[in-house]
Amino acid sequence: MVETTLDETHEIQLKSWVESANQPEGDFPIQNLPMGVFEQPGDRGAPSIGVAIGDLILDLSGCGAAGLLDIVAPAISQACTARSLQGLMALGPAPLSELRLHLSRTLRAHQPNSNENSQGALPHLIERSKVRMLLPCQIGDYSDFYASIHHAANVGKLFRPDNPLLPNYKYVPIGYHGRASSIVPSGTPVRRPYGQIKVDHAETPSFGPTASLDYELEVGFFNGAMNPLGSPVPIDEAESHIFGLCLVNDWSARDIQAWEYQPLGPFLGKSFATSISPWIVTLDALAPFRVASASRPESDPPPLPYLSSPRDRAKGAFDVRLEVLLSSHRMRESGIEPVSLGRANLRDLYWTPAQLLAHHTSNGCNLRPGDLLASGTVSGAPETSKGSLLELTERGRKPITLPGGEVRSFLADRDEVIMRAHCERPGFARIGFGECRGVVLPAENGVG
Amino acid sequence: MVETTLDETHEIQLKSWVESANQPEGDFPIQNLPMGVFEQPGDRGAPSIGVAIGDLILDLSGCGAAGLLDIVAPAISQACTARSLQGLMALGPAPLSELRLHLSRTLRAHQPNSNENSQGALPHLIERSKVRMLLPCQIGDYSDFYASIHHAANVGKLFRPDNPLLPNYKYVPIGYHGRASSIVPSGTPVRRPYGQIKVDHAETPSFGPTASLDYELEVGFFNGAMNPLGSPVPIDEAESHIFGLCLVNDWSARDIQAWEYQPLGPFLGKSFATSISPWIVTLDALAPFRVASASRPESDPPPLPYLSSPRDRAKGAFDVRLEVLLSSHRMRESGIEPVSLGRANLRDLYWTPAQLLAHHTSNGCNLRPGDLLASGTVSGAPETSKGSLLELTERGRKPITLPGGEVRSFLADRDEVIMRAHCERPGFARIGFGECRGVVLPAENGVG
Repeated sequence: MVETTLDETHEIQLKSWVESANQPEGDFPIQNLPMGVFEQPGDRGAPSIGVAIGDLILDLSGCGAAGLLDIVAPAISQACTARSLQGLMALGPAPLSELRLHLSRTLRAHQPNSNENSQGALPHLIERSKVRMLLPCQIGDYSDFYASIHHAANVGKLFRPDNPLLPNYKYVPIGYHGRASSIVPSGTPVRRPYGQIKVDHAETPSFGPTASLDYELEVGFFNGAMNPLGSPVPIDEAESHIFGLCLVNDWSARDIQAWEYQPLGPFLGKSFATSISPWIVTLDALAPFRVASASRPESDPPPLPYLSSPRDRAKGAFDVRLEVLLSSHRMRESGIEPVSLGRANLRDLYWTPAQLLAHHTSNGCNLRPGDLLASGTVSGAPETSKGSLLELTERGRKPITLPGGEVRSFLADRDEVIMRAHCERPGFARIGFGECRGVVLPAENGVG
Repeated sequence: MVETTLDETHEIQLKSWVESANQPEGDFPIQNLPMGVFEQPGDRGAPSIGVAIGDLILDLSGCGAAGLLDIVAPAISQACTARSLQGLMALGPAPLSELRLHLSRTLRAHQPNSNENSQGALPHLIERSKVRMLLPCQIGDYSDFYASIHHAANVGKLFRPDNPLLPNYKYVPIGYHGRASSIVPSGTPVRRPYGQIKVDHAETPSFGPTASLDYELEVGFFNGAMNPLGSPVPIDEAESHIFGLCLVNDWSARDIQAWEYQPLGPFLGKSFATSISPWIVTLDALAPFRVASASRPESDPPPLPYLSSPRDRAKGAFDVRLEVLLSSHRMRESGIEPVSLGRANLRDLYWTPAQLLAHHTSNGCNLRPGDLLASGTVSGAPETSKGSLLELTERGRKPITLPGGEVRSFLADRDEVIMRAHCERPGFARIGFGECRGVVLPAENGVG
């Protein structure tokens, strides 16, 4: 695990001259500075890298062209003017920290450490509400894990009540390859997919729209610096390969998945869409929120040596509060606020991100800048901490009632799923992730 | 399925003025013209697209710069000068056929239909033995299927003797997402991977080099023109999205795979390396070798409508003869030729490539130019038609003896696996695939 030192960028008393960044419940104070890629409406410009600050975005491409990034190493300022975060990701953690410090000084309200770029930055601030957020980079490969033991147990219980956890669970960070091409940024509507479905009483399957569309509340980790093919990343170096975190909704069609997944795992039940939140919260911003994993009891088998380190054990997890909400079409029409369906915490994963990454590379598999690793559904022990409808409604057997009286076993057309996350800790600024949103569109153009 | 008409480029009497293309047993006669990307030694040039002809490569980048491609549409000649086949793939089948006809006329020995570019092409021919073949394109996503019913039954029998085929097999073209980053071109050595292994009598797993490294004899299909997210490709259009075929060795660590694969499928048991042959044989070249699938008896359930079409049933399969050979270090030292371990035919797949592609997109999943779909291990019904050591040695229980006396349950260090394929049919030129090779390197730098 990389040293996650706290520096001046974390100080709670720091304020920005961007006033909207100083609201106590905001996601993007000056202590956060998450990175993303945006596009302005019309043809005003190509996609640019931006940093969220309050309600605004600092356009790094514009800053670079104006010479405002000259103080950082040329490799960094050059990477800031690209159309994707890939170049910055590839540089590894030290340059990113250098950039963060510079941006923090540029955006902070005048103090001795502020720098002279503040005034120059003014023309490169854009309202967040006026841009379109894109994927932060080209995602080469997407791997999805199964790192929440509560989720694994909840799901296992539905199928094997006496023996919910498989024998490998406490040894292997279980994961599978997901589909990269269908990852979309928050706000992209998701079409209800067709697929082969075999209902319980039927002799044969039929082809039609899924009747059990679900969300999965997950957190993604973008890979930063690559490791060459054949070169595993040791557990203590794994975090230096993680660029930052985002929210992931791993949309799932449970009926398609149930019929197809033996013996090679999920495929079309997942690959129709995966949504991610557009702002990547860096490991530097999350440094104050590092904790021990909360879900591995002392009595469990210790991780094998290649997944074990004292530092990872002490602070390998992230204290990030997650929430998933639902808003139906009728709720929106009636002015009813989205209803919370579950709250979970990322610290409740059985495996830390460093363990997931070390495991992923332990066979020599190469991870490239921009590759995405996701946690798998994050659920907690309480009933109120379930990260999917599959768990919440027990496979549809116990439907839930929404405010306004509608009932849901699984998602209905025009339902909007909203995911949010933030970190909080006394003595530190609140760090938010923004939102991951997606509306379900009715099925269309089936080919059957 | 797209119309696969035979035109002048398929005529058996066509000869090339490149003499080595006219040998009857050669892989690359003028009727083939497979495409790949190569690099010349030193820094003489960037990667170029080339077409194999006999022992030579026609450098399309050089041809384009010299104006020799001016006769084809500008979009085509421009795509020929790229460093990757992605651009050509994106254009779809008609431009590719136009290019093929032009190249055939350029390279054929003088006949009325030859064109005037023949002499101009001479300076753009390079010896194949002097270049390094690269991946043909950036592979965005790699999906691997399980389309050989003989393979599925052979493997199933090892684990469930009474019930080898799962209930979904004859309805769902089973597949999973593979790892794109670790796909390497033929000739790249493959390092024996470390991983978690639980031997049968042990209470807990340990971390070490795989003791059951295997090959899988497969064929890959490169996606050409993309389909947008949310837009399934109907079965009758599926072939217009397939650019061409290559050989795939889906290296597998059976012990790692056995311990990790429940419940989400293969992951690190596969993702350490996948080798592909560098020459993509186009669908045009394969037009004379289209046949009905040979492995679906009339008594089996018919494919669901979205996987069914009269044309696909009549000619959806490819009559491609596959072979996998092994050469141990000691065999090479002793001058013993590689030994054939299995011969199979691509027509024996239960599902056609068009069915695999239509199924893959049936949930709206988007396939991009350069995405790779693979067949899964191709095995046939006879004992001599097994495409993996897992099947051949029955999980190591029945080791095989190599010429020279060595014994193999699975692959040993320094073993070289060689895959070859070709098509033959009376009245048509032999169409070869070249080779997919890889040597096993000893395990190294485990992190445990």
